[in-house]
Amino acid sequence: MTTDMTTLSPVELRHLIRSGDFFGQTSGLCPGYTQANLAILPKDLAYDFLLFTQRNPRPCPVLEVSDTGSRKLHEFADDIDLANDFPKYRIYRNGKVDAEVTSVADIWQNDFVSFIIGCSFSFESELLASGIEVRNITEKVNVPMFNTNIPLKSADPFHGNMVVSMRPIPETQIPTAVQVTGAMPNVHGAPIQIGDPETIGISDLAHPDYGDPVTIKAGEQPVFWPCGVTPQNVIMQTKPPLVITHAPGHMLVTDVVNATLKY
Amino acid sequence: MTTDMTTLSPVELRHLIRSGDFFGQTSGLCPGYTQANLAILPKDLAYDFLLFTQRNPRPCPVLEVSDTGSRKLHEFADDIDLANDFPKYRIYRNGKVDAEVTSVADIWQNDFVSFIIGCSFSFESELLASGIEVRNITEKVNVPMFNTNIPLKSADPFHGNMVVSMRPIPETQIPTAVQVTGAMPNVHGAPIQIGDPETIGISDLAHPDYGDPVTIKAGEQPVFWPCGVTPQNVIMQTKPPLVITHAPGHMLVTDVVNATLKY
Repeated sequence: MTTDMTTLSPVELRHLIRSGDFFGQTSGLCPGYTQANLAILPKDLAYDFLLFTQRNPRPCPVLEVSDTGSRKLHEFADDIDLANDFPKYRIYRNGKVDAEVTSVADIWQNDFVSFIIGCSFSFESELLASGIEVRNITEKVNVPMFNTNIPLKSADPFHGNMVVSMRPIPETQIPTAVQVTGAMPNVHGAPIQIGDPETIGISDLAHPDYGDPVTIKAGEQPVFWPCGVTPQNVIMQTKPPLVITHAPGHMLVTDVVNATLKY
Repeated sequence: MTTDMTTLSPVELRHLIRSGDFFGQTSGLCPGYTQANLAILPKDLAYDFLLFTQRNPRPCPVLEVSDTGSRKLHEFADDIDLANDFPKYRIYRNGKVDAEVTSVADIWQNDFVSFIIGCSFSFESELLASGIEVRNITEKVNVPMFNTNIPLKSADPFHGNMVVSMRPIPETQIPTAVQVTGAMPNVHGAPIQIGDPETIGISDLAHPDYGDPVTIKAGEQPVFWPCGVTPQNVIMQTKPPLVITHAPGHMLVTDVVNATLKY
């Protein structure tokens, strides 16, 4: 592939993904544009899941919900095929990953509802713009993510604990990091914990439950944000018959610029 | 009734309402505490209505959704009976007001879902605290509300236009009014129109569609906010078989202080 990935527009990237010519992670692509998590559920579970997200907006900020059966969106992208435009999907059956695929067109159902959920990739570019280094970008790895002991509010049958992402921040820059991300509640908002991982049930920062470890330097605190992997954790704990998600790091790149998500 | 209404706590007020000893408007009661709009729908319409609110958060900011059939809440009030704790309810059948009652306990159904929706009464106290006069409070009338030509995003079958509330604000204070209310997106957030009512389809400020007219003085602009009466307008346009709402101005007074709704 000779395409220069760094200059693609969101719709050009989605076309490349749709044609099968790109199926990698989307971190760093189309900088400034909102990237999003995915959960596709049959309609009979859609009310309970939408209620679950309403009750847990910090880890599950819903950007848009598709019409039932539709592979289109109204707000976040024009030229889009929800069954093909994520680089990689996970098919969960009864709470376990049954397959990772690059298209779900062949198993699409007319009763599918797609939930497009905010992603912390969106605030990373805002942190960088505020002069705050994002360690996982510097070290070219996936952000470290951890299971916690923070219980979510249930919406029967959906239940579980929050997943968080961690970024080390120099102590002097923590107030700025809180303000920058706090202004973007649609992409998880302010941190949920600063500097004391054990209080939220995290004992070993060197071994994240998802993603990769990053260096924490002297004078830095680990800062934890609600994470869009939370729905996948909830699906694993709730075990519905069929749910489709994106594969971690393989996000939808939308036509909406991050700046419009700010208050 | 000899009760001093001005010193009641929210739970004391709810007890008074529940016992049938108070059924008036709640404007100005329990200052500082969040007041809320109501829409109760049978479960078979709950997904479409919840999706409608997700797509239209400015006029329909959902504070909490009850469990199906439950007359309790988890977050906004402890000691509460949703079938009795609003001073007055409206029963809509096929889009028309069939009755106004002080209790809906006798028609309660096990499939009812209650939507608790933010109310601009909550930001009025914040405007006052910022030194901005709220004319409808000064003149002791209900806030003027108007139908507009602003289309809402549909979630089939729910559709319709936005209703707005209007408060005249001195031109020098408009930026402050925008900032104060913009910081409270759960209770409608920033204005949707400033100073030019005809662009949103309002031709006569002296004759509001709901509530009462207020004086607009020289040097003031009419400022319009999305309004929690919007769901009632949508229900009238959508005509579902049965929906219960609060009667305008007769709100739920919750245990949550307005300050916690701020970003």
